[in-house]
Amino acid sequence: MRPEQATAFAPASSANLGPGFDLLGHSLDGWRDHATVQRIDAPEVRIEAIEGVVTALPARAEDNTAGAALISMRKALNLPFGFSVRLKKGIPLGSGLGGSAASAVAAVVAANALLDTPLPHAALYTYALDGEAVASGSRHGDNIAPSLLGGLIAAFKPELAEPIHLAAPEWLYTAVVHPAVVLETKVARAALSAPYALADFVQQSHHLAALLMGLQRGDEALIRQGLGDVLVEPRRAALIPGFAQVKQAALAAGALGASISGAGPSVFGWFVGRENAARGGAAMQEAFVKSGHAASVLISPVAGPAAALVTTPDTANTATLVAQAKD
Amino acid sequence: MRPEQATAFAPASSANLGPGFDLLGHSLDGWRDHATVQRIDAPEVRIEAIEGVVTALPARAEDNTAGAALISMRKALNLPFGFSVRLKKGIPLGSGLGGSAASAVAAVVAANALLDTPLPHAALYTYALDGEAVASGSRHGDNIAPSLLGGLIAAFKPELAEPIHLAAPEWLYTAVVHPAVVLETKVARAALSAPYALADFVQQSHHLAALLMGLQRGDEALIRQGLGDVLVEPRRAALIPGFAQVKQAALAAGALGASISGAGPSVFGWFVGRENAARGGAAMQEAFVKSGHAASVLISPVAGPAAALVTTPDTANTATLVAQAKD
Repeated sequence: MRPEQATAFAPASSANLGPGFDLLGHSLDGWRDHATVQRIDAPEVRIEAIEGVVTALPARAEDNTAGAALISMRKALNLPFGFSVRLKKGIPLGSGLGGSAASAVAAVVAANALLDTPLPHAALYTYALDGEAVASGSRHGDNIAPSLLGGLIAAFKPELAEPIHLAAPEWLYTAVVHPAVVLETKVARAALSAPYALADFVQQSHHLAALLMGLQRGDEALIRQGLGDVLVEPRRAALIPGFAQVKQAALAAGALGASISGAGPSVFGWFVGRENAARGGAAMQEAFVKSGHAASVLISPVAGPAAALVTTPDTANTATLVAQAKD
Repeated sequence: MRPEQATAFAPASSANLGPGFDLLGHSLDGWRDHATVQRIDAPEVRIEAIEGVVTALPARAEDNTAGAALISMRKALNLPFGFSVRLKKGIPLGSGLGGSAASAVAAVVAANALLDTPLPHAALYTYALDGEAVASGSRHGDNIAPSLLGGLIAAFKPELAEPIHLAAPEWLYTAVVHPAVVLETKVARAALSAPYALADFVQQSHHLAALLMGLQRGDEALIRQGLGDVLVEPRRAALIPGFAQVKQAALAAGALGASISGAGPSVFGWFVGRENAARGGAAMQEAFVKSGHAASVLISPVAGPAAALVTTPDTANTATLVAQAKD
């Protein structure tokens, strides 16, 4: 029997990943947003409540990533009914962890369960992209796709190709450290506006190819060579207090590479195995603290989970048990 | 018994391949350079003769790609003897077909057979790179690596990683059309010097990732999406008379994509199967002719041959049977 209400979670995600700017992203097993969606008779979308770690989000559905995603879905599917949404944010805002994408994803996954004939998850991608666009100004899939589909994804421009799963070796773990500072995506984008030299593009494309082929082959050395970023990181590093020290701490702890998660200020390091990631994450966290900023750390396989329906809304709070703040 | 003289061929190659600028290249089954190398007592390298389709090449060993490669090899291996080289050029100069690289590769492969303990081919890469550097000004492997190792290669910057073979589906064929015009690499490089916008880099990186993953998966649609070039081709197209028409002819004939081979003026199109490539190649050739330039066409699997020793030096001329000029 079709339910009148459904709750879904969508995981945080880490995008860009060094050379994969606006292209690569993977989901994280930890921080999550939840959306509880109710089917209503009125042919509209309402944001009923926003709770959790972020509440200062647009309450107008058109301006809210979850609301805009549902508006897109209603319109495309020509639905005769509407949706009312309650968001429970577990992903901090402006953190570079795909929070705005996760809200959109959680909303469409929950709403999908209320359709007379639910769609496969992949079909929800385009609606979630429309939702994300109200936050970022364009339809970027590098957080939406991993949050919706799970794992490590190449999210091509929608007009080019569908997102595809990349092989993520099961021994590959990330340590993501989120400092208690906010970096607005607009500011982070503005830092990238000056033009680029061809030589930098060539170097970056070598990193990207090495990363993609290294992942495909499970080749640790090639992944290590691939995790370099000569285009974006040098321009954004100064926006993140302590970035150089945090990256250095990751590398000193044996990271295959470390760079900015999404638009920052979160920083990730990739490691071989969970134990190394935990040790590296602690060192990265310590480096943020020494720079004067409390920071949370999350250890996750790069092959993280996909968004899914939840049966007991109480699980909405488990994420906070995973991430530990330190100051 | 170690011979006193050996002859090797090295195939032409097609580099850049759309989004893989200074990174990707594959060998071609057709145009070839040959080097006959003799061991001499004098501790030096001599260019004894240059024959074939190009003869106006530097005769001073230091300035000749084959000579410079052998000088690098002698020095690195601390050889007590020298080499004398005769080159037979089958690859036209300034064609974007890796001719200068092939001469270097043929020379080191032939000379290798004269060592007391010949090395594996992969170990010759660095010497051939040193040879190529005298022609191009830097150590680019995107023609050297495919000519030496065969097939489709990602030739990373030497300090980053060794070159790696990429999967090339056995149904993937190229039609390479070489017009009877010379485009100097220096001129082709100069066209690229103005800076680039981030959005173009992002678009190009999406093409590159789609191409790499499409090749890996043997996914025709993804290869098609990947074969786009928004960075280099738009700036070089005007240097190649008739380029737009030739590309259009390839696409109209069903090419997965078409772009500039190396620094041009040769143009390649990728096709599914040899027959389609032959039909497409003829259409591309016709388009060059209509633009007022005679052109040769070569049909080859993308997984072309590696350089190798030849036992009968007469095979040096078979390449000319494959390529047909038309005007």
